Amino acid sequence: MARKYSNLDLVDQIDGFPNITTHPEAFAKRTADHARFMHGPHIVGYIIPMVLEALKDVALSGDWWDITPGVVRLRGETVEERTKNIDETTRRWRDAKRFEILSGWRDERYTIYAPKGAPCFYMERSAHPLFGVVAYGAHMTVYIPATPTTPLRIWVPRRAAGKSTYPGMLDNTVAGGMGDGVGPWECIIKEAGEEASLEEDYVRAHAKAVGYVSYFYVRHKEAGGEAGLLQPEVEYCYDMIVKDASEGGPVPKPFDGEVAEHILMDVDEVVENLEAGKFKPNCAAVLLDFFIRHGILTAENEPNYLEINARLHRRFEFPTR
Amino acid sequence: MARKYSNLDLVDQIDGFPNITTHPEAFAKRTADHARFMHGPHIVGYIIPMVLEALKDVALSGDWWDITPGVVRLRGETVEERTKNIDETTRRWRDAKRFEILSGWRDERYTIYAPKGAPCFYMERSAHPLFGVVAYGAHMTVYIPATPTTPLRIWVPRRAAGKSTYPGMLDNTVAGGMGDGVGPWECIIKEAGEEASLEEDYVRAHAKAVGYVSYFYVRHKEAGGEAGLLQPEVEYCYDMIVKDASEGGPVPKPFDGEVAEHILMDVDEVVENLEAGKFKPNCAAVLLDFFIRHGILTAENEPNYLEINARLHRRFEFPTR
Repeated sequence: MARKYSNLDLVDQIDGFPNITTHPEAFAKRTADHARFMHGPHIVGYIIPMVLEALKDVALSGDWWDITPGVVRLRGETVEERTKNIDETTRRWRDAKRFEILSGWRDERYTIYAPKGAPCFYMERSAHPLFGVVAYGAHMTVYIPATPTTPLRIWVPRRAAGKSTYPGMLDNTVAGGMGDGVGPWECIIKEAGEEASLEEDYVRAHAKAVGYVSYFYVRHKEAGGEAGLLQPEVEYCYDMIVKDASEGGPVPKPFDGEVAEHILMDVDEVVENLEAGKFKPNCAAVLLDFFIRHGILTAENEPNYLEINARLHRRFEFPTR
Repeated sequence: MARKYSNLDLVDQIDGFPNITTHPEAFAKRTADHARFMHGPHIVGYIIPMVLEALKDVALSGDWWDITPGVVRLRGETVEERTKNIDETTRRWRDAKRFEILSGWRDERYTIYAPKGAPCFYMERSAHPLFGVVAYGAHMTVYIPATPTTPLRIWVPRRAAGKSTYPGMLDNTVAGGMGDGVGPWECIIKEAGEEASLEEDYVRAHAKAVGYVSYFYVRHKEAGGEAGLLQPEVEYCYDMIVKDASEGGPVPKPFDGEVAEHILMDVDEVVENLEAGKFKPNCAAVLLDFFIRHGILTAENEPNYLEINARLHRRFEFPTR
């Protein structure tokens, strides 16, 4: 396969929003026409002009938002009131077919946080990129360690061709968004069953928390819905060592139709597919973090080692979980 | 031991300089009287008022610096010229006993970087915190994995009581600054021999690169020299699994007098000593990263999990290696 992307290019794909620390001018230019989505003195997201227009239309007919130049606030004194107000907004947009992204409505709630981990409000999962608020997920890399004769191998799923987001692209072994108040550990257990038919007891005994990646994604067309929507994101990462199937190790199998097949790839094959752009962008980020933690990417073989790892642990201006 | 520090407190200890992304007002307030140390359009460090005064004195007698309000530039068209100019400056300060920190003069060169990993200039190691420029080091955690009957255990050195910096404090198994153009891998091999008497061939075969921690340290009194000096830092991290000594595993031993003893501590003992503030601050950071990568600290048992990990991968405004 042709080498289309360097590792830094892969990071650029998933962390495309300018960083105020390293690129203050690009940040100022980019955010000049974005409204800050504020809660008290805290910024919880950014609203791009296309969405701001739609909010102004909604504000004409509802009583849900305070819109002043450069700043948008969700009305409501309580979590429940704010949740109701953003729900009314997004349902109205959905019914009016205002945003293509809402055609993927899921009836699943994401939590948006105030400081100290307190919920600020809950909102429909498919709508969160309209508000540039932080989303959370959990990803697991299931792998067979290297032996003296065999390189490290990773179980890599190919997404179903019919999926609305990133159809046919390669994925992390297990991955899912954290909706409905489920924490990362319970999320990964559930997804391991749903996506890879991995038994709950086995996963509970063998999966290991290993950190997370965070980045500020500017959505591509392949993400589904409008391109250019903002998706700051935290993906909790898990590793799970398994044995080769010939030694009784579990073999991930499609279960719920979201995955077409699971392919056992050695590191070189994973790298080739990364470089060719075959992986879903945030799954590439998880794999780069895996490579760094496992001594596959090092300061000696990757010239952008420091930038890659720092950008995969982006610190947000928003309160987080 | 009394629990003096939470994990977030330990991060505060080592990452004490305000972050513009999360605390823009504190950052502006803190840096209001700091000069930017610029190279072309790039900021390579911060100069605090005490050092700015000394630079102005030097500027009277030398031709090494351009000092304008809020901005300091090192003169010189080439790496060699800039290196000579900062060398003249720091030697003059040393000879005049202007800064206590220079009493620890080491005659070892640190590299300060321009963009794209090119050297901007070289400077005396002991002087770098006077200029708030990024320093680099390599740290290794040597550990015996958990067994069904024994918890994970880490080899922990106690620094010699006579050391000028952090005397008597606990340290990472192997750690050292990256001077004289040595890369992180060669640095850790060398230090493993010098600090822990670990054989070079063994370390080359068993040490594994696992990432790095980066943070912006505001020096404490225990660091030696003036408190309040600025030390943004990158520590490349390595793990090395060893067997128990009873199974033939290597036992780290003091070699060059910098270490008093090596203690084998289980995770609970390490945690107790961390909480009691017994570890050198940046070694605490490396251990927190180790705990995160090894599933010991998780999103479920550490409320500040996201903040801790993001702050341990701080992205700097400075060009880096």
